[in-house]
Amino acid sequence: MTILVANAMVAPLIASRLPDWVDLRTFRHTEELFDLAPEAEIGWFDLDKKAPMAEAVRRATKLRWLNSIYAGVDGMPLDIMAERGVVYTNGVGINAVTIAEYVVMGMLTVAKGYREVVHAQDRHEWLMDSPGKVELAGSRALLLGYGAIGQRVDRILSAMDVEVVKVRRSGGEGALGPDAWRAQLGTFDWVILAVPATAETDGMIGAAELAAMKSGAVLVNVARGTVVDQEALVEALEARRIGAAFLDVTTPEPLPADHPLWALPNAHVTMHLSGRAQDKMFQRSAARFLENLERYRRGEPLAPQVDLALGY
Amino acid sequence: MTILVANAMVAPLIASRLPDWVDLRTFRHTEELFDLAPEAEIGWFDLDKKAPMAEAVRRATKLRWLNSIYAGVDGMPLDIMAERGVVYTNGVGINAVTIAEYVVMGMLTVAKGYREVVHAQDRHEWLMDSPGKVELAGSRALLLGYGAIGQRVDRILSAMDVEVVKVRRSGGEGALGPDAWRAQLGTFDWVILAVPATAETDGMIGAAELAAMKSGAVLVNVARGTVVDQEALVEALEARRIGAAFLDVTTPEPLPADHPLWALPNAHVTMHLSGRAQDKMFQRSAARFLENLERYRRGEPLAPQVDLALGY
Repeated sequence: MTILVANAMVAPLIASRLPDWVDLRTFRHTEELFDLAPEAEIGWFDLDKKAPMAEAVRRATKLRWLNSIYAGVDGMPLDIMAERGVVYTNGVGINAVTIAEYVVMGMLTVAKGYREVVHAQDRHEWLMDSPGKVELAGSRALLLGYGAIGQRVDRILSAMDVEVVKVRRSGGEGALGPDAWRAQLGTFDWVILAVPATAETDGMIGAAELAAMKSGAVLVNVARGTVVDQEALVEALEARRIGAAFLDVTTPEPLPADHPLWALPNAHVTMHLSGRAQDKMFQRSAARFLENLERYRRGEPLAPQVDLALGY
Repeated sequence: MTILVANAMVAPLIASRLPDWVDLRTFRHTEELFDLAPEAEIGWFDLDKKAPMAEAVRRATKLRWLNSIYAGVDGMPLDIMAERGVVYTNGVGINAVTIAEYVVMGMLTVAKGYREVVHAQDRHEWLMDSPGKVELAGSRALLLGYGAIGQRVDRILSAMDVEVVKVRRSGGEGALGPDAWRAQLGTFDWVILAVPATAETDGMIGAAELAAMKSGAVLVNVARGTVVDQEALVEALEARRIGAAFLDVTTPEPLPADHPLWALPNAHVTMHLSGRAQDKMFQRSAARFLENLERYRRGEPLAPQVDLALGY
């Protein structure tokens, strides 16, 4: 029997469909996970917090395959997993549909000043003119990251007649390479961050990049808070050196109640909800896991696998 | 010389580019318009209010061509214009880009519960889950009206993997005819109104249609308030017989401060701002007018012309 240790939240979605060579053991909290981890050959160790997930992986000395619903692998002990030859399948793409929709919503709400419209309705006040007058059509967007989210964003924005310039690590296929975009930064109305959080993307948007952006440009971040130098961003927003920021992610999360980003009139904070704005995540993840389980049995490669060296 | 009477707001956009056979006379308010109208061969009589525009047309007995930045022709004396052989070019399509973007924004903000996110930011509160969990991808939309707005909405939603079913007066080309849609009303997640305001579309969505809609369906109206039986809509929203309404247009406009639509948690009121959420309307309208002026001189048909019998 192959021991599978899985969170009790996901277990009901897979339990009835598991093959008979799998022995499912479930945990409801960190202590139970720590008890079960050392026996796991396959682990679905998802918790709300990364640190105990990482610790469980360290304790899981028999682990051969780690699965996760989350796309982000930052904070996980990738070096230990590489040493031990653990295969890591993550949730990349599981949330791409809703996150891409959230990016487009963010751009539209900033363009049309929709937050002011909401506040006017709160006051029962009929505005006579639009607080935002930007059309996406005819604007230019820099799209940093061209994974599952970036590809969907590209498709939707192109249908809206936005000129999308893509940046991907590998360059190619009409995309800029990882450094070529900086020289063009002043030509974009939108800078969209959909990159994985890696050493390479850490602080990728700092004071210099913000200073190079158009004065009306809008930064959209659905990647990780760490991709942006947040102090430099707050300064740029306060000084109105850029137009606005639509931030699904921040540093830290949750953002403390007294953090300046909450109150800046040109900062839009969406509390890392973009991936949660759907109810199909667990079903999609369960379906993907069960497909991988068949492949695992047959000794075939699992997908999508995290590249433990690149970190995404 | 051909006398052109135009609002002083638009005059600067065309004055320097007018051919020498045109004698431009401008007005700044209704009284000046009423004085000038009887001499006008070409009129650009736009005012904030329809009633005095209509009265000016009645007084303009020499008028051969009326131009307007507005798409809506409701309230204009179309019968008199037909009798006198006046050609009427309206603003149809001028605002289509931004209105289509507004429709998509409306759907996304309702789907993701974005208004609640705005309110949470107001309170500096980090929400732990999304107040809306709907994905547009995989949903079905009924699109009533397939003019310039409808066509753009169709293109964008299709790129988002929304299944769009179109209704147009003339049917054909994969579209339903003007009555076939009612039988299918219970199958749509979105009902989008982008029809012109005519006798035919007046009260097109009433109690029966609302009752036939899915319980979670969202009504999006960027047409005219009169297309919906608003009392029936308020009742349906109060009883949660439909999911929500995103209303750019209402009856009347402005909506009185004590109207129930303002406070309903599932009514989103956007104050007829969709067309105003851009700053290119005047330039586009001026460019179109100048093209038509050339055609007028050469005796060619002007475009887009209002069908004075159909009323759009």
